[in-house]
Amino acid sequence: MRKLLPSWFTGYQRPWLAGDLTAGMVVTVMLIPQSLAYAMLAGLPPEVGLYASVLPLFAYALFGSSMALAVGPVAVASLMTASALSHMAAQGSPEYLAMAILLALLSGVILFVAGLLRMGFLAHFLSHPVISGFISGSAVLITVGQLKYLLGMPLPSGSIMKTLSALPQQSSQLNTTTATIGIAALLFLLFSRLYLGKLLKQIGMTPKTSDLITKLAPMAAVIASTVVVAHYGLDQSAAVSIVGHVPAGLPALQLPALEWHAMAVLLLPAALISLVGFVESVSVAQSLAFKRGQRIDPDRELLGIGAANIASALSGGYPVTGGFARSVVNFSAGAQTPAAGVISAVLMAVVIASFTGSFHYLPHAVLAATIIVAVTALIDVSTLVETWHYDKADALSLLLTFFGVILLGVEEGILLGVVLSLAVLVWRSSHPHMAVVGRVPGTEHFRNVDRHQVETLPGLVALRIDESLYFANAQALESRIEALLRTHSGTRCILLILSAVNQLDSTALGILTELEKSLASRNISLQFSEVKGPVLDRLRPTPLGERMKDRIYLSTHQAFLAHTDSTVSA
Amino acid sequence: MRKLLPSWFTGYQRPWLAGDLTAGMVVTVMLIPQSLAYAMLAGLPPEVGLYASVLPLFAYALFGSSMALAVGPVAVASLMTASALSHMAAQGSPEYLAMAILLALLSGVILFVAGLLRMGFLAHFLSHPVISGFISGSAVLITVGQLKYLLGMPLPSGSIMKTLSALPQQSSQLNTTTATIGIAALLFLLFSRLYLGKLLKQIGMTPKTSDLITKLAPMAAVIASTVVVAHYGLDQSAAVSIVGHVPAGLPALQLPALEWHAMAVLLLPAALISLVGFVESVSVAQSLAFKRGQRIDPDRELLGIGAANIASALSGGYPVTGGFARSVVNFSAGAQTPAAGVISAVLMAVVIASFTGSFHYLPHAVLAATIIVAVTALIDVSTLVETWHYDKADALSLLLTFFGVILLGVEEGILLGVVLSLAVLVWRSSHPHMAVVGRVPGTEHFRNVDRHQVETLPGLVALRIDESLYFANAQALESRIEALLRTHSGTRCILLILSAVNQLDSTALGILTELEKSLASRNISLQFSEVKGPVLDRLRPTPLGERMKDRIYLSTHQAFLAHTDSTVSA
Repeated sequence: MRKLLPSWFTGYQRPWLAGDLTAGMVVTVMLIPQSLAYAMLAGLPPEVGLYASVLPLFAYALFGSSMALAVGPVAVASLMTASALSHMAAQGSPEYLAMAILLALLSGVILFVAGLLRMGFLAHFLSHPVISGFISGSAVLITVGQLKYLLGMPLPSGSIMKTLSALPQQSSQLNTTTATIGIAALLFLLFSRLYLGKLLKQIGMTPKTSDLITKLAPMAAVIASTVVVAHYGLDQSAAVSIVGHVPAGLPALQLPALEWHAMAVLLLPAALISLVGFVESVSVAQSLAFKRGQRIDPDRELLGIGAANIASALSGGYPVTGGFARSVVNFSAGAQTPAAGVISAVLMAVVIASFTGSFHYLPHAVLAATIIVAVTALIDVSTLVETWHYDKADALSLLLTFFGVILLGVEEGILLGVVLSLAVLVWRSSHPHMAVVGRVPGTEHFRNVDRHQVETLPGLVALRIDESLYFANAQALESRIEALLRTHSGTRCILLILSAVNQLDSTALGILTELEKSLASRNISLQFSEVKGPVLDRLRPTPLGERMKDRIYLSTHQAFLAHTDSTVSA
Repeated sequence: MRKLLPSWFTGYQRPWLAGDLTAGMVVTVMLIPQSLAYAMLAGLPPEVGLYASVLPLFAYALFGSSMALAVGPVAVASLMTASALSHMAAQGSPEYLAMAILLALLSGVILFVAGLLRMGFLAHFLSHPVISGFISGSAVLITVGQLKYLLGMPLPSGSIMKTLSALPQQSSQLNTTTATIGIAALLFLLFSRLYLGKLLKQIGMTPKTSDLITKLAPMAAVIASTVVVAHYGLDQSAAVSIVGHVPAGLPALQLPALEWHAMAVLLLPAALISLVGFVESVSVAQSLAFKRGQRIDPDRELLGIGAANIASALSGGYPVTGGFARSVVNFSAGAQTPAAGVISAVLMAVVIASFTGSFHYLPHAVLAATIIVAVTALIDVSTLVETWHYDKADALSLLLTFFGVILLGVEEGILLGVVLSLAVLVWRSSHPHMAVVGRVPGTEHFRNVDRHQVETLPGLVALRIDESLYFANAQALESRIEALLRTHSGTRCILLILSAVNQLDSTALGILTELEKSLASRNISLQFSEVKGPVLDRLRPTPLGERMKDRIYLSTHQAFLAHTDSTVSA
């Protein structure tokens, strides 16, 4: 039993409790408005956001490896949920809710199974520039989508162009009270984010305290606006849209209906939500862990976030993942272990059991303001600028992903991002670094002929390959040798120096095999030197290894000596 | 004008003509039955196969770079065409034909534009094992699909299981005459492929002549069966299915109807056909070119095959690409330049103008036998066996692609193959080779501490990175450093030796930037040595380069000296 429990629990130390308690409480205060707001963003009833903030936190605490990751509803996964379900059911219908729960289950199972199969390397399918473009694009999409709530104005959804172009002609239908509340909340939250911290520091607060206080601003906005709307009855007198009835209590645990057709359609969106959620969680968790010299195990993160999503589905919630902002707050508020998350979960359960009535008069416009302020912080221009200066191919992937999300949609955007990441990887890999080398006179050292004064032997071309060879770059080796044979007439021997080749996949082996035969038919001998142990072990039993067994030299020096001997004797 | 013409044409030499003429004629004799058969495989009227064998050959001769590639209808592209169109229109309908022509146009434009953008590296999206699995799977799919023509028996299509399981119950409907003709042709063709060559060599023919004669067997089967069916009137008396009327003459050049909806739906299939066709063509062209020390430019191949497809679409044909078998025959029959292809095209035009009437009584069963014998030669078990021994991950990709094609379909199979190729690439790349090094006593050389007796300095960990760093593997560096800091307590300095780092993408730069900050906050200094010129040039102006400018050492030796000094002075 003890072995099944996570080590942070069995080895829990008394002094950690203060930090975990503080962090758990601070995160809860952030989590309440965010879970209501993100449920709205996902097109779901507010209580679904609350449900997604209880059991998933327990599940992550049991299986995850981060001491600081704060799991729960997040903006991007909520947007992806809304996008995945938009073609399947009408927002507000029981089917829509059932599909959202099923989506969480599928994501959870995908992540958990990937964790069991130790497929944490999947996080590497997305490069940073692509993630940055994707997040920024999503943030723009989310912001535009929230305008109708912020301003109390009917706006068409479907595409960002449609929404924005309808703005002027719909302005006559603007609900001025709603818009006033929404814009006031927006300005207050922006002020808090941009200036409140500095102000508090100027009046003498410690940076830590002032940072934490600014994070409580959304809760303050929620309370203030709820009180104002309730006191003046603005929902009746001014038709301000409010959250309304939120049922109290957690729903009974139950497995969602497993409808095959729906599962087949939701599989791809679930996989994409899983990928994005996992990549985001791991990168936040890793950067926080590194600051304290802790370690994140990507395979255990798959299990943790997978378990969190399964738990969310079983308790009527929707897809969850590790949130960036809440995790950073959790960390800086002193979270030492996932106990902080457990404390948040318990507090959220108390809220659901007893205080859901207090959200009745909360205006949707304030939730929209919360969302907008949260996501505009994610729009990342500096990465674009830095990447543009550093690497144009990466900058281009970033921009294409950004516009892909905005113009094609969030799923198409992330698929485009995966393809772009991999295309850039293949493109970069397609030309392995290689150098023709010669001997530094009087030594056993070999250097690039283009950069050093070195000796070469007539009839021998020695080519050092500076990267592993695999399907993406092996053809380039063949082309390089073709080119060398044209410029070095009279070549009788090609020596490949494999000192940097750590891997040689079967495509590369096939190309080398064909190369050897083809060179042999032209009376040119292919030779290897400095083959690494693991590469040689696998090469030896192959047909190529058999044919070449007398032409594989331990060192380049020996190969040179052998060539000199054979030339002299011939 | 002269500059626009290909160099093989402007520099054509008289002695090449004999080889080109022979090859052009031999290829034509192969091309006639194959173009009729592959059109049938694609679900198209026989003349469409003939049309695809004229203008595309001219177009390739103008734009391509291979001296031996024989372009035209091929089995796999025909299967992919049938698969792409199966959900869009009924075989035999004018819409079906229009879609096939549109598919050729789209493929051609995709390939040509990719060529203009110099995206030849796209060929590297598929590893050899995946291609092998895909081709073998397609061959099985094609063989099973041809049984209904071979046996003259109605069989359901849709899935291989459905076809095979219907075989016993449909056996009562077998047309014995058709089946006899079909199986006789099959046995004759198999005999020719497997034994005729050996036999002819035994009676004293040169290997070259006997090889060429075996390639003429399909034409012999076509002529013999046509004569028999026509003479005995088997189409009437025994209901043997025959090719029937084939219109004479080439159609007028015209642009296919550009229907937007159809183009949107056909875009993905067109891209997949382009990818597969391009990869196959380039690999055949490259292996043939290498035997004569010639060079293939992948970007020009894109232009060549793209132009061939556009030409096919304009002249009423369907998707074409470089065929494996015909190219090898073209090469060994002595083709010196694409003039061989031009000669084939002229001969095919003559056939279309004057001899289409002679195909009237050609039985479908013989075309099916031709297809089956051609594609079963493509089923490649030896690659599976070799790959299985050499590399399990590659063998698994091969098998998964093979079963993906058979069970899910040809498009799903190739998509799966692309994903598997890239997943294996990312997986292999996800752990860069790294070694902690120390100084060989009394020298300026540094070697792996695990394998050599070397000196290390207290507080300094020197880590040599043996591969380029990019998004797929940079995280692993961070994890390795975390692990090293746990095992080497008291570390004050991490020295990264970047001698093998040829590239550092912006994801890796971001990770190093964060690493440096995070280490600095724990009073650990990050240092670099042996940074390559191009990498250093890009690193210097970045924020990381700025922060680290006094901690980048030319050699590892200098970094060691600096560390000794600072330790002594401290």
